Amino acid sequence: MSEQSVHVVRIGYRLGRDPRITTHLGLVSRAWGAKHFHVFGDEDNKLFSSIEQVNQRFGGVMECHHQKGLNRWLKNFQGSENNGVVVHLTMYGEHYKEVIPNIEHDRPLAIVVGGAKVPGEVFKISNFNVSIGTQPHSEVAALALFLEELNSNRNFQPTFENSKMVIEPSADGKIVHMKNEFEEE
Amino acid sequence: MSEQSVHVVRIGYRLGRDPRITTHLGLVSRAWGAKHFHVFGDEDNKLFSSIEQVNQRFGGVMECHHQKGLNRWLKNFQGSENNGVVVHLTMYGEHYKEVIPNIEHDRPLAIVVGGAKVPGEVFKISNFNVSIGTQPHSEVAALALFLEELNSNRNFQPTFENSKMVIEPSADGKIVHMKNEFEEE
Repeated sequence: MSEQSVHVVRIGYRLGRDPRITTHLGLVSRAWGAKHFHVFGDEDNKLFSSIEQVNQRFGGVMECHHQKGLNRWLKNFQGSENNGVVVHLTMYGEHYKEVIPNIEHDRPLAIVVGGAKVPGEVFKISNFNVSIGTQPHSEVAALALFLEELNSNRNFQPTFENSKMVIEPSADGKIVHMKNEFEEE
Repeated sequence: MSEQSVHVVRIGYRLGRDPRITTHLGLVSRAWGAKHFHVFGDEDNKLFSSIEQVNQRFGGVMECHHQKGLNRWLKNFQGSENNGVVVHLTMYGEHYKEVIPNIEHDRPLAIVVGGAKVPGEVFKISNFNVSIGTQPHSEVAALALFLEELNSNRNFQPTFENSKMVIEPSADGKIVHMKNEFEEE
C-alpha cells in the first residue's frame, strides 16, 4: 500500500499565546509521519525554525507553511486538482475509530486542528468531523491519537532519513547514537 | 477487574511558562480516568481552578495536588504503605506497548511526566522508563497514548458522574445535552 499524503492544518494561531502548543502539534505531526504542517493565523518563523531543528537532528522532511484564507484553502484541497479529504478534529464529531476505516486511502488527507474558536464553516466544509472522545482535553492529544490510529489502520510506520541522532530504547537510561557526518563517505 | 488507581505526576512546573501544556496534561489525565493530578514545582491555583471547572461541567472527581520533594514522594509512593508502581514517560525508555502488559494491575500507578530537564534520579527511582516512540514530540501526546493503551489493556472505560453537560457524537454539528439541575428531584 502506498503512503497516504498527510497534511496537518493548525487554524487560529495567535502569536505570543500558542507557541508551545503549536510546536507540540508540529512535532507530533512530524513524529507520526505527516509531510506538511500548515499554520493559519499569525506568522511565526521562530516556531518553524524549532521544528526545522528537529528535522535536522532526527531526520525526515516535514515542511512547514504559513497560510491565509482558510475556507478557500480547504475547498481547493478538496477540488479536482488535489482531490483531497478534509478531516476536522473536534470533541463534537464522530468517534475516530469508527471514522478512520471509512477514509479513502488513496487521496491526500488534511487534518484540521482547531484553536479556541473554530468557525462554523469548518464543520460544514470538512468531509468528516471526528472526535477523540467526548470529554474536553487537548488538541495535541487528539492529533496524536488520530495519527496513531490512522497509521495503524494503514499499516504505516514512519521513517526518518538523514538523521544525525538515533535513540535506542532502554530500560534505565539514555542511549543516543550520534552519526558521524563522514560515516557514509 | 477492579479499577487501577492512576496518579499523573507533572514535574518541574514553572509559573508563567507552562500553564497551557500543564492544563492539557491535567485534562488528558481526567479524560482518560486518572483520579489524581500532582504538580511539582511552582504553585498555581489558577491552573487547578480551570481543571476544576471542567470537573463541574463535565463531571467526575479528579483531584489536583501541589507537591514538594519529588524523590521522597516517589519513594513513599513505592513504599510498603502504598505499594505503588512508578512509570516515567521519556523518549529514551522502552516501548509502551511492550511495557504496559508487565505493569501489575492491582497496585496504584504513578505516571511521571517530565518537563525540559528531568533529574537523573527519576530514571533510577522509576520502576519503568517508558517511551512513546523514539522521536521528540510532546508530553501531552505521550500521556494520552500511554493512558489510551493502559485503559485498553485493562478493558477500562472512564465514567464521569454528576455532569451538567454531555456531548453526543455528531457527523456535522454540535449536540450538547444540558442536564437540568432539578431533574432528579
